[in-house]
Amino acid sequence: MSQRVSDEAGAKAMGEIRSGPSSRRHGDTLPHIHKVGAPPKQSVFKEFKDYFNETIFPDSPLKKYKNQTGFGRFFLALQSVFPILDWARDYNLEKFRGDFISGLTIASLCIPQDIAYAKLANLDPQYGLYTSFVAPLVYAFMGSSRDIAIGPVAVVSLLLGTSLSEEISNYKSHEYLRLAFTATFFAGITQMALGVFRLGFLIDFLSHAAIVGFMAGAAITIGLQQLKGLLGIQNFTKKTDIIAVMHSVWSNVHHGWNWETIVIGIAFLIFLLVAKYIAKKNKKLFWVAAIAPMISVVVSTFCVYITRADKKGVSIVKHIKKGVNPSSASEIYFSGKYLGPGVRIGVIAGMIALTEAVAIGRTFAAMKDYSIDGNKEMVAMGAMNIVGSLTSCYVATGSFSRSAVNYMAGCSTAVSNIVMSIVVLLTVLVITPLFKYTPNAVLASIIIAAVSSLVDIDAAILLWKIDKFDFIACMGAFFGVIFKNVEIGLLIAVAISFAKILLQVTRPRTAVLGKLPGTNVYRNIQQYPKATQISGMLITRVDSAIYFSNSNYIKERILRWLIDEGDQRSRSGFIPIQYLIVEMSPVTDIDTSGIHAFEELYKSLQRKEVQLILANPGPIVMGKLHSSNLADLIGENKIFSSVTDAVTTFGPKVEDAV
Amino acid sequence: MSQRVSDEAGAKAMGEIRSGPSSRRHGDTLPHIHKVGAPPKQSVFKEFKDYFNETIFPDSPLKKYKNQTGFGRFFLALQSVFPILDWARDYNLEKFRGDFISGLTIASLCIPQDIAYAKLANLDPQYGLYTSFVAPLVYAFMGSSRDIAIGPVAVVSLLLGTSLSEEISNYKSHEYLRLAFTATFFAGITQMALGVFRLGFLIDFLSHAAIVGFMAGAAITIGLQQLKGLLGIQNFTKKTDIIAVMHSVWSNVHHGWNWETIVIGIAFLIFLLVAKYIAKKNKKLFWVAAIAPMISVVVSTFCVYITRADKKGVSIVKHIKKGVNPSSASEIYFSGKYLGPGVRIGVIAGMIALTEAVAIGRTFAAMKDYSIDGNKEMVAMGAMNIVGSLTSCYVATGSFSRSAVNYMAGCSTAVSNIVMSIVVLLTVLVITPLFKYTPNAVLASIIIAAVSSLVDIDAAILLWKIDKFDFIACMGAFFGVIFKNVEIGLLIAVAISFAKILLQVTRPRTAVLGKLPGTNVYRNIQQYPKATQISGMLITRVDSAIYFSNSNYIKERILRWLIDEGDQRSRSGFIPIQYLIVEMSPVTDIDTSGIHAFEELYKSLQRKEVQLILANPGPIVMGKLHSSNLADLIGENKIFSSVTDAVTTFGPKVEDAV
Repeated sequence: MSQRVSDEAGAKAMGEIRSGPSSRRHGDTLPHIHKVGAPPKQSVFKEFKDYFNETIFPDSPLKKYKNQTGFGRFFLALQSVFPILDWARDYNLEKFRGDFISGLTIASLCIPQDIAYAKLANLDPQYGLYTSFVAPLVYAFMGSSRDIAIGPVAVVSLLLGTSLSEEISNYKSHEYLRLAFTATFFAGITQMALGVFRLGFLIDFLSHAAIVGFMAGAAITIGLQQLKGLLGIQNFTKKTDIIAVMHSVWSNVHHGWNWETIVIGIAFLIFLLVAKYIAKKNKKLFWVAAIAPMISVVVSTFCVYITRADKKGVSIVKHIKKGVNPSSASEIYFSGKYLGPGVRIGVIAGMIALTEAVAIGRTFAAMKDYSIDGNKEMVAMGAMNIVGSLTSCYVATGSFSRSAVNYMAGCSTAVSNIVMSIVVLLTVLVITPLFKYTPNAVLASIIIAAVSSLVDIDAAILLWKIDKFDFIACMGAFFGVIFKNVEIGLLIAVAISFAKILLQVTRPRTAVLGKLPGTNVYRNIQQYPKATQISGMLITRVDSAIYFSNSNYIKERILRWLIDEGDQRSRSGFIPIQYLIVEMSPVTDIDTSGIHAFEELYKSLQRKEVQLILANPGPIVMGKLHSSNLADLIGENKIFSSVTDAVTTFGPKVEDAV
Repeated sequence: MSQRVSDEAGAKAMGEIRSGPSSRRHGDTLPHIHKVGAPPKQSVFKEFKDYFNETIFPDSPLKKYKNQTGFGRFFLALQSVFPILDWARDYNLEKFRGDFISGLTIASLCIPQDIAYAKLANLDPQYGLYTSFVAPLVYAFMGSSRDIAIGPVAVVSLLLGTSLSEEISNYKSHEYLRLAFTATFFAGITQMALGVFRLGFLIDFLSHAAIVGFMAGAAITIGLQQLKGLLGIQNFTKKTDIIAVMHSVWSNVHHGWNWETIVIGIAFLIFLLVAKYIAKKNKKLFWVAAIAPMISVVVSTFCVYITRADKKGVSIVKHIKKGVNPSSASEIYFSGKYLGPGVRIGVIAGMIALTEAVAIGRTFAAMKDYSIDGNKEMVAMGAMNIVGSLTSCYVATGSFSRSAVNYMAGCSTAVSNIVMSIVVLLTVLVITPLFKYTPNAVLASIIIAAVSSLVDIDAAILLWKIDKFDFIACMGAFFGVIFKNVEIGLLIAVAISFAKILLQVTRPRTAVLGKLPGTNVYRNIQQYPKATQISGMLITRVDSAIYFSNSNYIKERILRWLIDEGDQRSRSGFIPIQYLIVEMSPVTDIDTSGIHAFEELYKSLQRKEVQLILANPGPIVMGKLHSSNLADLIGENKIFSSVTDAVTTFGPKVEDAV
């Protein structure tokens, strides 16, 4: 007797349910058969509110306002708009030392880049410097990232340059400048609106894969544009696609290239790339790469000045205005024919700028383990660009390369941006005239060196290895940018990304499950070849919410499993399938089309004399099964909290593997 | 001793794992700990092929061609284009009896409807009849539905009428007619292309909810349009929105209404609605509703003829051309300024027509338990409309009301369509001149009676009960159609449906799991309040594929669960959370952004001294974890085939509920 008991004990300890008739009877009263919970009835309003909150306010931003007095709430609100009020209280001299050094370092890096990037946007060099003065100041008060370095960046400058000059081809005209401010203003409005209405998740739709391709394409496009400065070509195409640019370069080879310019350009390019290589190999020498551009500018300007190389055809910066940012509030187009293009360019530039800034913010926040509120960050970016557009700045955002330098130089708060901003202010007030003789070739070298790190071949290889669809999106963006333009590249990437989501929603995975030997666990038989099917039963799992876009497919796929499996089993002499169990755990939601599909599935199965059993429908699904009366149609006794319970109740007396 | 054993046996029979040290040691060697299966390495090509096949050819249409000789394959291919070759071999006299009677019945219903619907499309009445002659013939040879009745339908006629007259406002002109044929041609091309390229799933994106709202809106718009005929108004607006129409009706109230017309119209409308009501109450009397329109036409035509009511302002059909369809092959615009509008209208009309036809086909196929190949059906519809556009027909599709009559009259194959087609042929050859005195008011009554059943209030109530989002889509389509126009209504419905999918993909559900007492089953603690959490562990489940659109949200949501739960537990004096288990069963796929998010999650957890454990990643996810080296980072020993195994391995020695 004891022997028998312990035998049974052993079998059961292994989790096996050997349902003999006695065990079956037993099972009905065992406490381990749990009823499927239906969610508590909620009012429509409550339901909608919860849904809305989880979509728009997943981080419950208002939680901290509870249990606060009026003034407390006001101060918290002020703090949430100006995080500086929060962190400034803990600020100390030690932190300032780090911020001061890193501020000086990024200033030395940003000044030559600003001048160069302004040219990418077809603007005079001082506008780049203006942007590096106002925008970082505003950000320092409102932003929540401690490591980001704010200012003009290459990709956004290129985007602005090409989009604006499509509208106004004469970029020396005052209208061009006004349109640039208009676009900047609306970029800021876009960013702020996304933050205020908490629609920040929209930028997630620009996938990592798309950004990798887009950045690489933009970097190559920017690099090709620099051939103008590097080779000293006068008649350069205004198009940005690779074919037009290469054509322009070759057609100028015999009389358009200027050899003095090429010597200067190539020499400093090699210097910059070597500095960059050194910094990459030895992280402690990051400052080598950080000050190399400034050294290049100083040395080359001096050389040109004493050799008077500008008389020999070496193109130089020439005019760069001295003085602090003038107001540009009256320059913005609020009506007229340029309003539309301004808004359009602004929205696109604002989104791209945000994507870059948020990615940078998240990366460094993860490295130092603090958290960034994406929506708040967008408000800060928006405010900074709106203020910028009123003070002669163009679109600013976080620069990846300068942020990395900032981080490595030991910044601890946004004060490093303030330091940088003050250095830039001193520059525009005092030393800008000295840049007059800076050769454009050196600026081109600085740009090429800066954007070279945007081509991330390792990331593309990883995309290929992990997800082919991501790789296609990446390549689509890349080739779109280099063969057409930045906007087309973006459009391709977004379209491919959306197509991927829609395909997944339209053709969700379904699986046939089997029982892992010696357990109560049911798993995909393709993944676990040891899993055995139950005689007379077919267990399937649907791995997606059931919506109009896939309800028909799911119904037909399940019926196809049934027919295929039935054929196979009848050929092998097994008993026919009498029960179809649909494991619903992954089905988060079902809509009316899904309910109809299940009604049709139920009717089809009825005609085939197969019983439909549902296992573990989630709370939302359970609610809908009840409100649609589908639960009554199928029968409450056919809905179980787990596959195991269903198999225990309806399974074969002696468990046969199939 | 025996007592102790049987006690333990009891506990274990209840599926409980009471992991004492001995049980732990035992567990490691027990056969029930299964390794997580990784999918077999496939070549990129094979992987892509499988994916492509499941997306485009989920029904493996080429399976039957295997093991066939050359001629066999040719015949099978012919059969798949012309299903008549398949079913005609089993055709017999008994089936013909059913088809003959149902063919006559639907012919008597379709002739008055054809004349009325042609007016909706602003075409002369004969074009409706032409369409009911050619299209059903073509369909009978190529279609696979046995119950559908083919011909012009109200909604598509309205859509064509409004879209075409937006392009060419003078609908008496020859250009209007040519544009109608052009749109029909491209509707056919669209349908055929969708079928040939097996993109039929695209019409699933028009959800059931959207169709309910769209149809109701279209029915009301159509009904309002009929006020012109019913009230005998001469100066009627050409707009279709409810405000313009009601304005037009009231501004004509004093001198524009014709009382003789109203008497005729109202009388026959009541007759038709009563007939419809009778048929609805007693299914056997379906033929009452089926022949009522024909009776109305005959009686009213006779009355007008003998009373000469047309002299008193009762508007009549007047001219209706006798004879078989003329060719219209040379009328189609293949170039010029009307090509663009023709293509656009054709694509929209073709999609709407398909949606209706496929829904009808599926409904009746489910009732008789045969299956419809959606893609093949689209090819048949496409061929029918292309042929139609060459023979003076406009867009034809399946009519729901006539298909229902066809079904109830006992049709058994598409031969009933051939019978109907022949009756229509005889009508256009012989008796069309008799329709000259048919009052337009009766046609208006017939349309109103026909479209009244498209307003499905019960369906709308069900939508409200089951899924609020579906209801919003439904109402969006409804109000869009009645307040603006058909195209805007469609656009709203599709936009809301897409937004729903995207929201679900962007904000997927995550749940905290607990153990159901006495089982090894882990379930959502919100749905199963009895489920208990494990001390020192937090178990979460992600219910969606992890893609770029949601990877950040998922990462942050999991961290938020961890912080909230950690706070709560530390307040209650429980030990802190040391293990975070992520149940991955529902995660069908993960892309590079998802992999990055998990890397970041892992790093965040490391800093919080919490171990990340994955339970049951699916085959695709497992493959990507390996190819991205994330599996090595997390540690193979932290990846389990089930939550139970993970809890057994790392869980507390004595299981404490939290």
